[in-house]
Amino acid sequence: MFKANKHRIENHIESLARFTSTPGHGTTRLSYSKEDAAARHYIKQEMNNLGLVVREDAVGNIYGRMEGALKNAPAVIIGSHFDSVPNGGSFDGPAGIVTGLEVVALFRDYGFEPQYPLEVIAMIEEEGSRFGGGVLGSRMIAGQITLVDLNEMKDNTGLSAAEAMEKMGFNAAEIGSAQRTGKDVKAFLELHIEQGPLLEAAAQDVGIVEMIVGMTEIRITVKGKSGHAGTTPMEGRADALAGAVSILKELPGMVLDEPDRPVLTVGKLNVLPNGANVIPNQVTFTVDIRSAHSDTIQRILQKIEQLVADVKIPGISFSTEELLYAEPVEMSADIQTLLIENCEKLGLRYRKMVSGAGHDAMIFADFTETGLIFVPSKDGISHTPEEWTDYAQLQKGIEVAFETIVQLTEAKEKSSNTETY
Amino acid sequence: MFKANKHRIENHIESLARFTSTPGHGTTRLSYSKEDAAARHYIKQEMNNLGLVVREDAVGNIYGRMEGALKNAPAVIIGSHFDSVPNGGSFDGPAGIVTGLEVVALFRDYGFEPQYPLEVIAMIEEEGSRFGGGVLGSRMIAGQITLVDLNEMKDNTGLSAAEAMEKMGFNAAEIGSAQRTGKDVKAFLELHIEQGPLLEAAAQDVGIVEMIVGMTEIRITVKGKSGHAGTTPMEGRADALAGAVSILKELPGMVLDEPDRPVLTVGKLNVLPNGANVIPNQVTFTVDIRSAHSDTIQRILQKIEQLVADVKIPGISFSTEELLYAEPVEMSADIQTLLIENCEKLGLRYRKMVSGAGHDAMIFADFTETGLIFVPSKDGISHTPEEWTDYAQLQKGIEVAFETIVQLTEAKEKSSNTETY
Repeated sequence: MFKANKHRIENHIESLARFTSTPGHGTTRLSYSKEDAAARHYIKQEMNNLGLVVREDAVGNIYGRMEGALKNAPAVIIGSHFDSVPNGGSFDGPAGIVTGLEVVALFRDYGFEPQYPLEVIAMIEEEGSRFGGGVLGSRMIAGQITLVDLNEMKDNTGLSAAEAMEKMGFNAAEIGSAQRTGKDVKAFLELHIEQGPLLEAAAQDVGIVEMIVGMTEIRITVKGKSGHAGTTPMEGRADALAGAVSILKELPGMVLDEPDRPVLTVGKLNVLPNGANVIPNQVTFTVDIRSAHSDTIQRILQKIEQLVADVKIPGISFSTEELLYAEPVEMSADIQTLLIENCEKLGLRYRKMVSGAGHDAMIFADFTETGLIFVPSKDGISHTPEEWTDYAQLQKGIEVAFETIVQLTEAKEKSSNTETY
Repeated sequence: MFKANKHRIENHIESLARFTSTPGHGTTRLSYSKEDAAARHYIKQEMNNLGLVVREDAVGNIYGRMEGALKNAPAVIIGSHFDSVPNGGSFDGPAGIVTGLEVVALFRDYGFEPQYPLEVIAMIEEEGSRFGGGVLGSRMIAGQITLVDLNEMKDNTGLSAAEAMEKMGFNAAEIGSAQRTGKDVKAFLELHIEQGPLLEAAAQDVGIVEMIVGMTEIRITVKGKSGHAGTTPMEGRADALAGAVSILKELPGMVLDEPDRPVLTVGKLNVLPNGANVIPNQVTFTVDIRSAHSDTIQRILQKIEQLVADVKIPGISFSTEELLYAEPVEMSADIQTLLIENCEKLGLRYRKMVSGAGHDAMIFADFTETGLIFVPSKDGISHTPEEWTDYAQLQKGIEVAFETIVQLTEAKEKSSNTETY
């Protein structure tokens, strides 16, 4: 049996956790930030130490490649993202990158040589914390994003994604060169923390994802008119926050009567000008909706559109904008079969499950065979500094990934090394 | 008839408006900022040009003093504040400082000599945009603030008011020396823009304020638990924003049934961590309540406390904190009489009125005879870049202020100059 190295795994996770703009308050690592640069340096260095050929694509995704014995064969890619939400945890994203690094280390330790090239990937902006929308790194790889999009996406300071890339030495104009296709990618495998309570509750080691829920993110902008808090009578006001509340108070009701347990979240809300004695003239907020069924999402969106159309307040206008729309996505049945076989071979407790979170895997599934492995999240929480997965659990997930990557790359043990085991 | 100089007034207003951190987007001039320093330099220079003795008190209020013929007599003070809300206008505050400068210029132009000393004042932090609460400059003059308070008041970056003062060369520890009393202040007069629609609607030139409404500002903090937007079922959530909305939606109803037309505003609201796919774990917002009757304010506060106590959501806690409480304040009846006489003498259309906005005048009324003059606000708006008062209207208000200051200081025309008119 091939054992992953728990100390190596722990060291990678804890090293990456140090690249945060909020030390002591979890991981805050926005794409193209100072912390991104530091984490990027670490990842490239570790890839180099493993003997991988390291490159960054035009938009900042990092690849480390091990050539295979076959010439011009499509690559098997393993990895995840290294950006974070504000004040998030150490595992969401990095666990998948560390899995890639550790799988390569095991290839080296145990003398495996792949037939198909093996690439470890570390992607940017999965969370959308800087530019909204999310899964941007993988969407660029899938060819779903244009230069126009990168110029239009802005961060809180008004800087565009294209400008942020340029400041870090990347080149948004060359975005086309970042695209990968089914022709040069044989398969994609991602390990991720569950970010939910199911595996822990059932004392299971591994989740084998069958499907990722569909999700949409919309932004609602409420415009009113500012004025002095003391001199503007209540009846003459066009208070954008009061307008927003008239929508916000109805939103949970839009999902509670749906039978397939969709979820709806308003996570981000900004008030302008945000002074205690000024009536707000603008409020923007996001609405994140997820369900295993795309018709449920469509029905909820229609209910929200109807609500926005029905709310009539003098002087208040509403507009909605779709930031992200993703259909529910099925994972590769063949890779699910491999994952099940490997769990059984390794004696691990596993379940098949639906992912409530979106992942880069759902974008890769658009053009290649894709698998997604979950490991347990302590207390089911994520996106907080308390996010945690025991290293022994991560190790088990990585061992499943290793076995599966050996199969997908059709790797062979070097005869000179096999006798050492 | 003594005519104020419209060009001089316009030049002062427009010069001060240039000291903003948001050029093209109105006046943003936080206390002790770079823009404060630049405006401060301008005001002191103009005071110097008028031959005033210029000084700054220990906490950064600026005085320009013209000695009177009487020895050791209490001073008449005229002025207002030079800080602004974020993205505010050019008139809120500066109009009153420019009035002080122009009144002194008219004393010079027309050869008036005061019996009582005349002081022009430019105060800091009336809006509370940096440290919350508001009317800080005048509260320090009234002796209502301690060094402990200045250490506790923090800006958005965590810097205390005391530290911000120190960075600008002031000395919070000497706050006691900034206090003025009824013994050394004979009267305070402030001209301010109305910031409401009444004067313009009635085509009146001047508002003579009888009373400033009482006001209170509270901060409500809602704490919940963050989690992933996709993997946390709706029924397991402790969403701080949903908790805040359960309060926010009830707030307007707390004032609408009150007969004396109080106003309530939630102007500032911040969500943490404010990521689109993270359930908020904290929301803080301010509630600003104003009424001409303190029992109305007390009743509304009690209703809000009751509401906060009644809302029970698992995992959500609420706390409230009072940032500012000010009783309704009556202006000096004697000064109101002078203002009425002067409006009639100058042939101006005037009305007596209640101020819905708080002003430094309400703090001065605590220890000296205080008058407050309003001039019309175009469209009744304020705290926006579009805030506007016609210079001809400002000129009329300043002429009323001049006549009144001549009376309050018991100024006499120099005999050598009187013949020039």
